[in-house]
Amino acid sequence: MPTIPASEIKTRIACLQNRLRQEKLSMAFMLQAADIFYYAGVFQQGVLWVPDEGEPIFFVRRSFDEARRFSPLSQVVAIKSPRQIPALPQAKQVQWEGCAGIESDVLPVQQYEMLKETFPTLTFHNCSPLIREQRAVKSDFELAIQRRGAAIMDAAYQQLGKEIRPGMSELEISARFEYLIRIEGHQVAVRVRGLNPEFHYGSMLAGNSGTVVSFFDGALGGAGLSPAFPIGSSRSIWNKNEPLMVDYVGSFDGYCVDTSRVFVAGELAGQLQLAHQVALDIIKALQNKARPGVTCEEAYALSCEIAQSAGLAKHFMGYGDTQAKFVGHGVGIELNELPVLARGNQTCLVRNMVLAIEPKLVFPALGAVGTESTFVVRDDGLEPLDVCDNRLLHV
Amino acid sequence: MPTIPASEIKTRIACLQNRLRQEKLSMAFMLQAADIFYYAGVFQQGVLWVPDEGEPIFFVRRSFDEARRFSPLSQVVAIKSPRQIPALPQAKQVQWEGCAGIESDVLPVQQYEMLKETFPTLTFHNCSPLIREQRAVKSDFELAIQRRGAAIMDAAYQQLGKEIRPGMSELEISARFEYLIRIEGHQVAVRVRGLNPEFHYGSMLAGNSGTVVSFFDGALGGAGLSPAFPIGSSRSIWNKNEPLMVDYVGSFDGYCVDTSRVFVAGELAGQLQLAHQVALDIIKALQNKARPGVTCEEAYALSCEIAQSAGLAKHFMGYGDTQAKFVGHGVGIELNELPVLARGNQTCLVRNMVLAIEPKLVFPALGAVGTESTFVVRDDGLEPLDVCDNRLLHV
Repeated sequence: MPTIPASEIKTRIACLQNRLRQEKLSMAFMLQAADIFYYAGVFQQGVLWVPDEGEPIFFVRRSFDEARRFSPLSQVVAIKSPRQIPALPQAKQVQWEGCAGIESDVLPVQQYEMLKETFPTLTFHNCSPLIREQRAVKSDFELAIQRRGAAIMDAAYQQLGKEIRPGMSELEISARFEYLIRIEGHQVAVRVRGLNPEFHYGSMLAGNSGTVVSFFDGALGGAGLSPAFPIGSSRSIWNKNEPLMVDYVGSFDGYCVDTSRVFVAGELAGQLQLAHQVALDIIKALQNKARPGVTCEEAYALSCEIAQSAGLAKHFMGYGDTQAKFVGHGVGIELNELPVLARGNQTCLVRNMVLAIEPKLVFPALGAVGTESTFVVRDDGLEPLDVCDNRLLHV
Repeated sequence: MPTIPASEIKTRIACLQNRLRQEKLSMAFMLQAADIFYYAGVFQQGVLWVPDEGEPIFFVRRSFDEARRFSPLSQVVAIKSPRQIPALPQAKQVQWEGCAGIESDVLPVQQYEMLKETFPTLTFHNCSPLIREQRAVKSDFELAIQRRGAAIMDAAYQQLGKEIRPGMSELEISARFEYLIRIEGHQVAVRVRGLNPEFHYGSMLAGNSGTVVSFFDGALGGAGLSPAFPIGSSRSIWNKNEPLMVDYVGSFDGYCVDTSRVFVAGELAGQLQLAHQVALDIIKALQNKARPGVTCEEAYALSCEIAQSAGLAKHFMGYGDTQAKFVGHGVGIELNELPVLARGNQTCLVRNMVLAIEPKLVFPALGAVGTESTFVVRDDGLEPLDVCDNRLLHV
């Protein structure tokens, strides 16, 4: 069981405190699982309080013992409710003044009201952008975890090719693939930031399923098994000469890697073969061009140009008016991290950002082709965390 | 793919409108997936607006086509952002006055601020309790879905008994069990209401793993695979003469059933055998006594008395100061529905509430025994949705 080194946590806290001071925030309260895990080294239920300088305190409702066991933080304090905090000895010397950062993008109204009542002398401001910007750049420790996850996914794709054949349903193939990655330690849960984190392993999309749009802001969706959870694999059958788009998230030891591969039995229509090659061209171009200092918008524009040159602009990242307007996104503890390689995003790439690059092309009635791998931004371009074998995989 | 009948949605909306009027709320805004699915018949991303009388409108950002295809609601309207709503023709005749219900327990601060800015003439009040109370009582349509899910889980437990043996790890057994339920249509995702819906299929807890407390408010937790997601199955090995506590949630066609079974190879210590029998006694007593009009507190107290009489009070629902103070909970679209059979809860049981009853007993160093099945409240007591074979299962 990998634990987060104390030095790693120390650096993360120091970096956050630096940002808090820049933004004139006197402290931050974190209640969300991904953020608590990042700064405390373990997720448990409670409130992680980080002052703009000095020692953070992890106030834990449950489980205190597990928090103390795994967190390198020096101050882990048991509480029954966050309302107790001001009365605790550890909180007596704190100046509860100024503006406190909160996770406004995920903190429910009810918990916000509780914080306002508990700390009536504070004002509150959204600090999620600071947290998310910090988390976008990975440490070597984090990269090593993601690299291991990517290797597991690579091996699972290889194995899947040996186990499937046309005539199987998306659900049946999903169950097999999920078994392969689960037994290697996939944590099942994939953290997605925001209201309605409606996600799991990923999607297995045979033929036309690759064209079904979902609630999720991405190129692909899938019908799912019912209107209750209309995303991902359905009971549709994968047929010969149809693309099987496998879009799955590895989630190991707390970190995601985002991957897609296309399997085919027989031959794809020429149009789909061409489109898949265009996706590979986009990956190659971005590997060379996307480096520190390049903006997200420039990377997205380059992808669009390549799709456009091939006459495939209207198939790129979805079809018609449901097209997604990005070609990649940060990935780490959460699937939807910063930055997003999207139209209008002027953010510059930074060394050691980790990006899922996912050029996908969608053809009504035929399905989806394309690819996805997870890369780290290096000085000379994108370095893949997996073996990046993005060819059409024939079974 | 089961779709929700129009009559079902009509009844649900009428019931909500009745409650809104009682509470002097002029309308409700719903943004959360479970609530949208319940009242619209499909989850898609957007805002479901329900006035205290008249037709609701489902404003859909994505996917509009899928929402219109599956929702029986007559008004499904495409939007790019909820901020557009007041300017839409459909919203022009609405009186944006009075107090509007919002889901304060799950709605993030950021979306709340957006609603306040978009509808400056409204005030807002938490309506989640109304929604959750309504959803606690199931229709025959919902019961049929949950019954199917319970039957799938029953069959999977039977099959699991044939596939496992001591020496296998919790993770390995989990991967097999998850394959068995996935291939029958388990949707993987299990909806848990609140900030940090950190959950998936469930937990496979061999021996001492049954004593590891997690962030989750329940009798059992488990160490999980890393401090990033410290709940559920670990890599620990299941040994002969140890209990294997399997605590898994069925999640089919949008509805959960909560189940647990204990497997053993060899013989359990006498103390554990006795404790398991006490759990069966508690189930039996509640089946007879828990009926409409009985309070949740009374049901909980009855369970505690039986544990107490057997000298097992301090092992009941966890050990020591991390004991959970309940013996069951509502279950439906979300795992943690109302009511909770807990200390101090004066809520009376109502016909057609669906309850997971889960008497579990925890012994330091030995593990957990007990059972869990899902029941519907009938006039003469609790009727199990599964076959309720809660004996120790010998393999």
